[in-house]
Amino acid sequence: MAKQERGTRSRRAILRAAAEVFDERGYDAASTNEILARSGLTRGALYHHFPSKEAIAAALLEAHSEALVAPDDSTKMQAIIDLTFGFAYRLQRDPVLRASVRLAVEDTSFTRPVNTPYEQSSATIRGLLEQAREQGETLPGLDLTEATTMIVGSFTGMQVMSQVYTNRKDLPERVTTMWRLLLPGIVSPGMIGHLRVTPPPAAAAAPEPAAVGA
Amino acid sequence: MAKQERGTRSRRAILRAAAEVFDERGYDAASTNEILARSGLTRGALYHHFPSKEAIAAALLEAHSEALVAPDDSTKMQAIIDLTFGFAYRLQRDPVLRASVRLAVEDTSFTRPVNTPYEQSSATIRGLLEQAREQGETLPGLDLTEATTMIVGSFTGMQVMSQVYTNRKDLPERVTTMWRLLLPGIVSPGMIGHLRVTPPPAAAAAPEPAAVGA
Repeated sequence: MAKQERGTRSRRAILRAAAEVFDERGYDAASTNEILARSGLTRGALYHHFPSKEAIAAALLEAHSEALVAPDDSTKMQAIIDLTFGFAYRLQRDPVLRASVRLAVEDTSFTRPVNTPYEQSSATIRGLLEQAREQGETLPGLDLTEATTMIVGSFTGMQVMSQVYTNRKDLPERVTTMWRLLLPGIVSPGMIGHLRVTPPPAAAAAPEPAAVGA
Repeated sequence: MAKQERGTRSRRAILRAAAEVFDERGYDAASTNEILARSGLTRGALYHHFPSKEAIAAALLEAHSEALVAPDDSTKMQAIIDLTFGFAYRLQRDPVLRASVRLAVEDTSFTRPVNTPYEQSSATIRGLLEQAREQGETLPGLDLTEATTMIVGSFTGMQVMSQVYTNRKDLPERVTTMWRLLLPGIVSPGMIGHLRVTPPPAAAAAPEPAAVGA
């Protein structure tokens, strides 16, 4: 195995182990000792890749942008809807993404640019909303900044509540509820009947999400 | 001062001090030593009222229901809207309510019935929605369970994001955004123009919120 490849594997192992510990305990209670133990690597290897716990957390936030891949759909509102279902699907399965979301929601000693995940989500959705508007899918006069804030904000709240109530098992149903209530304020009336607000059929058979840095 | 009154004052002092510490550090990092130091009371007084840190947290969750006083308005949707603005107003000013919300949003070792605040909010809003439906304010066929979930969920997300971005300074503007986008999916079209989605004028001059247990 080439040196570079070994390095990439070590880095992934650290991020995966750290994500599990952050996801279970939160940032402040997570110790580098426990991260080391789970990764099976040496302290030297850890510090080679990341100078501090903070640096690991910052790298985990990158997972957020990787989960923001908009499905290709000619109807841009459908692409936005499916983006949220895809994100929900990965949240249920990927500890790296869960750790990144937990870092964004909780108030800890991690002095990161904590709004990075929200900025990334907002930029992606805003871009799709602009395309949707160009295609005449949105309500005339819709304020895209407001619509972006509301989509990101209500998804955030739905996933926080879903975690509290069912450890995210009912997240897809909550996302369906969100879109059913939200679409009349966003899309033109003629569009509503053409949009699917349930998870895309493909999600059930989608491959496991790639690891951070993959 | 009568003995009972002294007891009530001590209890309030503990809850206020604990709320500040929980609000600043989160449940797990909060120590009873720091709560004691801030309250100015003895350890004996603390344990007289609360056997554990967990018992204090459980009492703080009660603050949530006290902040759920629906304003009296003949239009029930306006009462719901103003309830959310009143809650936002208190979140900006009352550490006791902030502590209760932080306990509900974050994943800590506190093994409480963590969904209590969401249940309380949902019950209040659901009751008002039923009255709104009776008065013909809601969209025909609206699923009140879904509408309740969406109102509580999107408010939760708006306040989490507002905290991250502005330490809750822009929360009223985010609540306005929420209602502007959400109303078309909830109320009958004729109602929208009759509802105010900005903070009620009285909120600016409202008295400071009462302490827990007051």
